[in-house]
Amino acid sequence: MENSKIIILINCADQPNIIATVTTFVAKNGGNIVYIDQHVDREQNTFFMRLEGEFNSADFSMAKFKAVFKDTLVNKFNLKWRIYASDAKQKMAVFVSKYDHCLYDLLGRYNSGELGLEIPFILSNHNDLKPIANNFKIPFYHIPVTKNNKAEAEERQLQLLEKYNIDFIVLARYMQIISGKLIDKYPSKIINIHHSFLPAFVGAKPYHSAYKRGVKIIGATSHYVTEELDAGPIIEQDVAHVSHDHSVKDLIAKGRDLEKIVLSSAVKLHAKRKVMAYNNKTVIFS
Amino acid sequence: MENSKIIILINCADQPNIIATVTTFVAKNGGNIVYIDQHVDREQNTFFMRLEGEFNSADFSMAKFKAVFKDTLVNKFNLKWRIYASDAKQKMAVFVSKYDHCLYDLLGRYNSGELGLEIPFILSNHNDLKPIANNFKIPFYHIPVTKNNKAEAEERQLQLLEKYNIDFIVLARYMQIISGKLIDKYPSKIINIHHSFLPAFVGAKPYHSAYKRGVKIIGATSHYVTEELDAGPIIEQDVAHVSHDHSVKDLIAKGRDLEKIVLSSAVKLHAKRKVMAYNNKTVIFS
Amino acid sequence: MENSKIIILINCADQPNIIATVTTFVAKNGGNIVYIDQHVDREQNTFFMRLEGEFNSADFSMAKFKAVFKDTLVNKFNLKWRIYASDAKQKMAVFVSKYDHCLYDLLGRYNSGELGLEIPFILSNHNDLKPIANNFKIPFYHIPVTKNNKAEAEERQLQLLEKYNIDFIVLARYMQIISGKLIDKYPSKIINIHHSFLPAFVGAKPYHSAYKRGVKIIGATSHYVTEELDAGPIIEQDVAHVSHDHSVKDLIAKGRDLEKIVLSSAVKLHAKRKVMAYNNKTVIFS
Amino acid sequence: MENSKIIILINCADQPNIIATVTTFVAKNGGNIVYIDQHVDREQNTFFMRLEGEFNSADFSMAKFKAVFKDTLVNKFNLKWRIYASDAKQKMAVFVSKYDHCLYDLLGRYNSGELGLEIPFILSNHNDLKPIANNFKIPFYHIPVTKNNKAEAEERQLQLLEKYNIDFIVLARYMQIISGKLIDKYPSKIINIHHSFLPAFVGAKPYHSAYKRGVKIIGATSHYVTEELDAGPIIEQDVAHVSHDHSVKDLIAKGRDLEKIVLSSAVKLHAKRKVMAYNNKTVIFS
Repeated sequence: MENSKIIILINCADQPNIIATVTTFVAKNGGNIVYIDQHVDREQNTFFMRLEGEFNSADFSMAKFKAVFKDTLVNKFNLKWRIYASDAKQKMAVFVSKYDHCLYDLLGRYNSGELGLEIPFILSNHNDLKPIANNFKIPFYHIPVTKNNKAEAEERQLQLLEKYNIDFIVLARYMQIISGKLIDKYPSKIINIHHSFLPAFVGAKPYHSAYKRGVKIIGATSHYVTEELDAGPIIEQDVAHVSHDHSVKDLIAKGRDLEKIVLSSAVKLHAKRKVMAYNNKTVIFS
Repeated sequence: MENSKIIILINCADQPNIIATVTTFVAKNGGNIVYIDQHVDREQNTFFMRLEGEFNSADFSMAKFKAVFKDTLVNKFNLKWRIYASDAKQKMAVFVSKYDHCLYDLLGRYNSGELGLEIPFILSNHNDLKPIANNFKIPFYHIPVTKNNKAEAEERQLQLLEKYNIDFIVLARYMQIISGKLIDKYPSKIINIHHSFLPAFVGAKPYHSAYKRGVKIIGATSHYVTEELDAGPIIEQDVAHVSHDHSVKDLIAKGRDLEKIVLSSAVKLHAKRKVMAYNNKTVIFS
Repeated sequence: MENSKIIILINCADQPNIIATVTTFVAKNGGNIVYIDQHVDREQNTFFMRLEGEFNSADFSMAKFKAVFKDTLVNKFNLKWRIYASDAKQKMAVFVSKYDHCLYDLLGRYNSGELGLEIPFILSNHNDLKPIANNFKIPFYHIPVTKNNKAEAEERQLQLLEKYNIDFIVLARYMQIISGKLIDKYPSKIINIHHSFLPAFVGAKPYHSAYKRGVKIIGATSHYVTEELDAGPIIEQDVAHVSHDHSVKDLIAKGRDLEKIVLSSAVKLHAKRKVMAYNNKTVIFS
Repeated sequence: MENSKIIILINCADQPNIIATVTTFVAKNGGNIVYIDQHVDREQNTFFMRLEGEFNSADFSMAKFKAVFKDTLVNKFNLKWRIYASDAKQKMAVFVSKYDHCLYDLLGRYNSGELGLEIPFILSNHNDLKPIANNFKIPFYHIPVTKNNKAEAEERQLQLLEKYNIDFIVLARYMQIISGKLIDKYPSKIINIHHSFLPAFVGAKPYHSAYKRGVKIIGATSHYVTEELDAGPIIEQDVAHVSHDHSVKDLIAKGRDLEKIVLSSAVKLHAKRKVMAYNNKTVIFS
């Protein structure tokens, strides 16, 4: 007989006895805790916890567990909570434009099983990367975006996202502004890669700005998309050393490696439900 | 009224309900858990946990808590355990020879309050660094070590360590082999800095070996001292990039920075009781 | 009218006036020096130089230039020398087995034009990666290697390398020992990726060894293949931090990213003729 | 008989034959070139070169060499140029306020001979760090700065700088704005350490800003001081990874290590005359 494994994410005002109460609740309901980590934001007086538990699958009903969890704990501690089956793979939509490096990187990892998720489709405002989608046998949708068809294009995007039951979206160098409507439907569920070390060089052409400023290090930042451009909660960042000898073109080439690693790392963290966003920041569990 | 804060470290065979039982025990005894992290070594089937709890100090007795902990939990789970008062600063002895960079670094951090410990004395087999000890107003003991006086020198070291109630020892580039007797008295309590990226270049003159091999990265490693030379549990490592342009002398200069940072980092982790050593490896809690 | 650009690589015993003599020679023959860098190995008393010059292409003959260079300079300084047309793309053969991550990475970069070389064919002792070669429209040769057919397999490899005028070979996780015969034909022209921070963990299963030793950093090393296993001149290394929390499987996943970046970086350096190997080490020009 | 070693730094509009002409000039005047590196900024069409030459000291006169250099080359190429004796140690003034970590670090390196310069005095607007100056036996000047005495304080600073023939100034966490008058007298000769990864978080309290933004990496930047605050040419940068778990206080502690390493690295580069500043950027020679 196999085990059922679940992930519990909670946050609430910091208060005594939360950890003991929740762990005891899990134990009393037949669960063995195999992972627990917590964080307290002292400034905001907020408590965060991520817990994984294993249950004997013969006896275990997710629906029943959630119901009891809600009755017993949620009101008592005024919890915000999410409970997931560990083996339920999230469905991720990939949005791209013309750059292929992040797409190749994600699909290579997808093929190797490293990402732990499903990619039901790839969407682009251009047709250039369709052959790559074909090679990897993933449906490709071409939805052009122009000044005049924005609302309509967005409507088609939303229909696709709903049709495929998409859990979250990755913008793998998708060169379009995401509208507030889409952001509201997928809060902390749209992951972008910005090709600079935020908050330095927000906006377009960061490598050109970095070259002009003569920085000795460039970076890349993955973050959740919010209404304010390039200002959402940061999930992951990485950097590389550069010198006066690097042209803008060299910075772009070096930056591609950073973008790939930082974006795929953020995707993996999100897929494993290790990220909690709040107050425009993130807690990243180990 | 102030709070009493304690740190609990346990390890045992992995088994169900440990986390829930221990956290409930702490809660029932009036403690609020402010930190919990755990690790399971699947290969060794071993469970590790570090927990911090706050107690109302009017009611709290450390001795009583330890006694109840022992009675209630230790036999039940066959625990190995340690409980400390969080604010009890450990006493660290510093052993040095003639190199001063790690000593300056540690004492600079000590002065700024960053280390969170006490340094009752500095010991050396040479007199060269006595002026530094004087500047920082820390007692300095000169115990020469020769081929013929090893046993006697060690005896004097042991007497000093006991007299000052030393908790752990840092070898800040102390260029002598530590005897088995001392190691046995301070198991996982003697921290060494090795000036290479272990396990590459064990033994003497690692920078010369690194130069000869033409490596593009050099490193430093802090580890607990065990009987086998440079083979004890690794606490912290860091690296720096080098090129063909670096002479042995350049590698040594670049390496000094690594040694300082890696050694002080290991000292801080040990001082905050965030390291558990087992099976010649370490678990480092966040 | 376009310019002809050449690369000159020389090494010899260190002696006065080399730089001035060579740069003057280039200038007198109508060349404008656009890059110059040099290195002196003081221990070996050896001088290395890499120089790029631009010539007016109407007047310039590579054959004539080489002849004059040889007559004027080579005997005078007892030079070892190589002169290349900068725009002559080298031909690189890719050897693989079953792992696809380094192959995907190289081909993605190849497609984007980042590598600055040609890949006439991919060779493997297995058939698994043939579809990837097909996707990228590169000829794929399957040459199985068994205990009994080694000499014959090697003969077929050599024939292919000659037929396609291959300049150098990259072993993109090719899991076979390269024979001395092949190494002799391609000295400092076979690039391997070793999945550890050499010289730590030579040989097979380095991630398992790293896990067992409990290191806090893992690495990858690209080097030229020599007769002694994993002991050839190091071209590039990089590392990533790990913790007790990483299983062997995690180390392998994290290591794949290092392998890709370190191997492609070595390939680019070699393709741009920025590497000089000597005395089992490398000089890497900027 | 000993050798005289000189360093030549030049920049000018990029044009043919500079390298050959200069190297030939050095050779004809009895010099053996032991280092040469150059850089061309294609955007600005500007050429930079750093060259080291060894001369037989019996015959060599620096004054004569400079005169001939000027007559022969400077007008011909419209050169900006500087020539130094390699063994002439620069005189560096250290400005501090109350933070001691950068001062300790610089003086520790100074004592070990690593910096290759002289420190004639330490200046502060506070008296707190006088004991450290005393320990290292370096004159200490206390020049308080208030709203009302700025011009007068600056006058006293200038007198000290002139009296001691200071070549350049390092601001080792000196918490005062440097006036335009001082900057004009020491252009590209005042090195500051900014405790963030510029251009992110310019101005005061960058660690607080970094905490608020939830960045996953913090940095430090050393740069030449210009009239615009924190906007001068960047010499060196480095970074460290942080997490949600780091408080502002933790960021400050981690940042101190970065500040020390980045500042001392910039000081060493400047001391060895490896930095050329232009167009608000730097060329850093190897």
